[in-house]
Amino acid sequence: MTTSAWQTPEWVKHAVFYQIFPERFANGDHSNDPANVQPWGTSPTLYNYMGGDLQGIIDQLDYLVDLGINALYLNPIFQATTSHKYNTFDYFKIDPHFGTLETFKTLLNEAHQRGIKVILDAVFNHCGRGFFAFHDVIENGVHSPYTNWFHVSRFPIHPYESRYPANYRTWWDFRELPKFNTDNPAVRKYLLDVARYWIELGIDGWRLDVPNEIDDHDFWREFRTIVKAINPEAYIVGEIWTDGSAWLQGDQFDAVMNYLFRDLCTDFFASYSMRAGDFAAGIDHLIVRYQPQVTYVQFNLLGSHDTARFLSVAEGAGKWALERMKLAVLFKLIFPGAPCIYYGDEIGLHGGKDPDCRRCFPWDQPQTWQTELQTWTKQWVKFRHEYTALRTGRYATLFADNDMNIFACARWDEQSQFVIVLNNNQTPWALDLPLHGQLPSVTQYRDVNTGELYSVAEGKIRELALAPWKHLVLQAV
Amino acid sequence: MTTSAWQTPEWVKHAVFYQIFPERFANGDHSNDPANVQPWGTSPTLYNYMGGDLQGIIDQLDYLVDLGINALYLNPIFQATTSHKYNTFDYFKIDPHFGTLETFKTLLNEAHQRGIKVILDAVFNHCGRGFFAFHDVIENGVHSPYTNWFHVSRFPIHPYESRYPANYRTWWDFRELPKFNTDNPAVRKYLLDVARYWIELGIDGWRLDVPNEIDDHDFWREFRTIVKAINPEAYIVGEIWTDGSAWLQGDQFDAVMNYLFRDLCTDFFASYSMRAGDFAAGIDHLIVRYQPQVTYVQFNLLGSHDTARFLSVAEGAGKWALERMKLAVLFKLIFPGAPCIYYGDEIGLHGGKDPDCRRCFPWDQPQTWQTELQTWTKQWVKFRHEYTALRTGRYATLFADNDMNIFACARWDEQSQFVIVLNNNQTPWALDLPLHGQLPSVTQYRDVNTGELYSVAEGKIRELALAPWKHLVLQAV
Ligand SMILES: [Ca+2]
Ligand SMILES: [Ca+2]
Repeated sequence: MTTSAWQTPEWVKHAVFYQIFPERFANGDHSNDPANVQPWGTSPTLYNYMGGDLQGIIDQLDYLVDLGINALYLNPIFQATTSHKYNTFDYFKIDPHFGTLETFKTLLNEAHQRGIKVILDAVFNHCGRGFFAFHDVIENGVHSPYTNWFHVSRFPIHPYESRYPANYRTWWDFRELPKFNTDNPAVRKYLLDVARYWIELGIDGWRLDVPNEIDDHDFWREFRTIVKAINPEAYIVGEIWTDGSAWLQGDQFDAVMNYLFRDLCTDFFASYSMRAGDFAAGIDHLIVRYQPQVTYVQFNLLGSHDTARFLSVAEGAGKWALERMKLAVLFKLIFPGAPCIYYGDEIGLHGGKDPDCRRCFPWDQPQTWQTELQTWTKQWVKFRHEYTALRTGRYATLFADNDMNIFACARWDEQSQFVIVLNNNQTPWALDLPLHGQLPSVTQYRDVNTGELYSVAEGKIRELALAPWKHLVLQAV
Repeated sequence: MTTSAWQTPEWVKHAVFYQIFPERFANGDHSNDPANVQPWGTSPTLYNYMGGDLQGIIDQLDYLVDLGINALYLNPIFQATTSHKYNTFDYFKIDPHFGTLETFKTLLNEAHQRGIKVILDAVFNHCGRGFFAFHDVIENGVHSPYTNWFHVSRFPIHPYESRYPANYRTWWDFRELPKFNTDNPAVRKYLLDVARYWIELGIDGWRLDVPNEIDDHDFWREFRTIVKAINPEAYIVGEIWTDGSAWLQGDQFDAVMNYLFRDLCTDFFASYSMRAGDFAAGIDHLIVRYQPQVTYVQFNLLGSHDTARFLSVAEGAGKWALERMKLAVLFKLIFPGAPCIYYGDEIGLHGGKDPDCRRCFPWDQPQTWQTELQTWTKQWVKFRHEYTALRTGRYATLFADNDMNIFACARWDEQSQFVIVLNNNQTPWALDLPLHGQLPSVTQYRDVNTGELYSVAEGKIRELALAPWKHLVLQAV
């Protein structure tokens, strides 16, 4: 096993990600729209298309720069028969509804020129039924040269006839998603060639779809070796919804999608089903769960294409949803790890569970934007970029109380020190905030919003006044 | 309509083609063999693979140069799930069992360096079920953006369930070959982009698969315009088994695969069911059927991947099969139009109807080669290359007699004049051969094989002695 001296990509520690579901972010080229394209903003269904594409992303890069974004995670962009494109048809081809290889190269180039990294979605556990090797098995059955690329239990297989058993392994029970036999060296070579091809083309990393389903750590070790040999700074982040330790020992992933973080934030801020003390316990557990170089590059999200949108969950829990979301956004942006904004969350886009969480970004209806949230997001993204303490500094929970539902924490390094206090509550509180023993001792803190000064006495910041749903961000002076 | 002044490619008038079925010609790279590859030389079935590929063709280019070949027609090489690859999966990709795009570029380059042109097979009437657009219709039914790329009569379609009607138009009754809706501008654009892409890559022409099934001459007019705009010397030859006049007016094809020629030769020489007089009538009709610039570039074949091999047909008709085939080969090589040798015919490869006519070329078993036929083929290919009269000269039938079963014809231009006499018969004959009035008058002919001289008197070459199954090739001196 590797030692704790292993490295994660430096740039990720300083990244603020933006996740884009390309079919719904922006339509920059009507000439590539699906023939049955629906008007931008139509409610998402399982089958409909709205025409978003890579040119749309290129067109909005300056918007993203203005928001403070310096990294993109794109949901799958390879050719497939769905809007989400997780049923890959061709791993070497940009979906024609999204653009061409040239469009993608332009996107990469334009993003890189703006200091924005780009990572793509690697769906290696399964493919679509149209993937050439599986299609060959459909066509030729036992005579196919590719039977051993999958897990066929018997012939004939029934990829389309739901009244018969599929007779091959799938992702969950979806016969439209045949599982690869990654024990077959030809399959490994194929998938690793895919990984190599796009890294060589210049992408900055891979988000790995359901990597736990490929129950073979050696596969991911080979994957890391190949990717890092080409670009040692490539980011490898696995979609793991629970504990990722098995993949985070230095030989496989750099990080995982931090759904544990998302769950805690959702429970505490959005669904309002968890109180501050329990939230703090979860957060503290999260902080010590992985080695620091992992924690600093964890992919911290509040929601994704696979979850209901944070604001909609918050609204489902009653009033003050916007206030609670603002606190969550602030917390994400001061927490160790690379924060990710799911496209549209910053302007208050709504959406329930998949596919409703994949609505169109309403570029054409700016009057619907939640500009307060947008300004807030931009403000704290900028704040994060200003201070290394927020990115590579230390973290400590300072205070959390289930009754008051107040949570406070600190971030610090040799340059600066911050104390963040969140009143996730409709009640105003006055508080003497106890400081953590490891925090460098100072005598005063200044509120970064108001400039107001607070004194320290006997290890506590004295007389903090917290209006309902308010925050304090205090900088040691 | 165009005038008779329109041009066909000059190089084709001087071409001797070799048709290659890539899966069976030569295996130059075992690393790309299908996983279930069978030993080279296994009897062909509907499903088996023997591992032939593009590297194999590259490896044998010098063999082909030695044979006198200066043009190749390759059966489909784009990705597909069959050995014949007429059910295209991806029109922009070399089949991985045949090689990569790089291999193909090498083949093109190596061929061109040897003065060998390369034409490919364009299968534009239909695709395979795995072709991305049709696959999308399978996956999404009426919700697919590609429903209008095909002729769907009702949903659901049944591409794999033979007990239900397919519900879409196919090539004949093969539901594995969905017919394109070429009335859809998107489909036209796609197919014409395919045509453009490979011509721009450097191929020298297209053989069009079942172009009569695309009942739209405007499509082929657009096709010609696009192809010729890139390469005015590109060769466009349609697979038309009957009369091709509708496509040969200057606005669509340059030529057709001359199956009418093949039928006449098969009947006269191979199956031995037609006598010389009737053969001559057919040949004379063929000569006047099209404008001269077409006749000079017709694709003259004795057999193909779609027919039983000529030698096997000849053997089915009894003894002297080799002698009759030799006469046919000679006739093809002195006839106007570009002769094509179906791979292996020159070494006496046998084969009945498809798929038996697609056997492996026995590189590993030279003791099985019919070297007399090979030498013969090479000799007359060389002869054709030596004299423009045989390529761009005039043609006249001189003599044909059903009883004697002797056939004679002449080829001439300003440089040289030839008289060819074929005794397609077990009986020896002596003959005073009447010369055609249009032939420049000479007093003597020399046998190109023996040097023997023959005198002309009263418009006849005197005292020709023809042993059974023998030929005379006489050159005016
Ligand atoms: Ca579009
Ligand atoms: Ca091979």
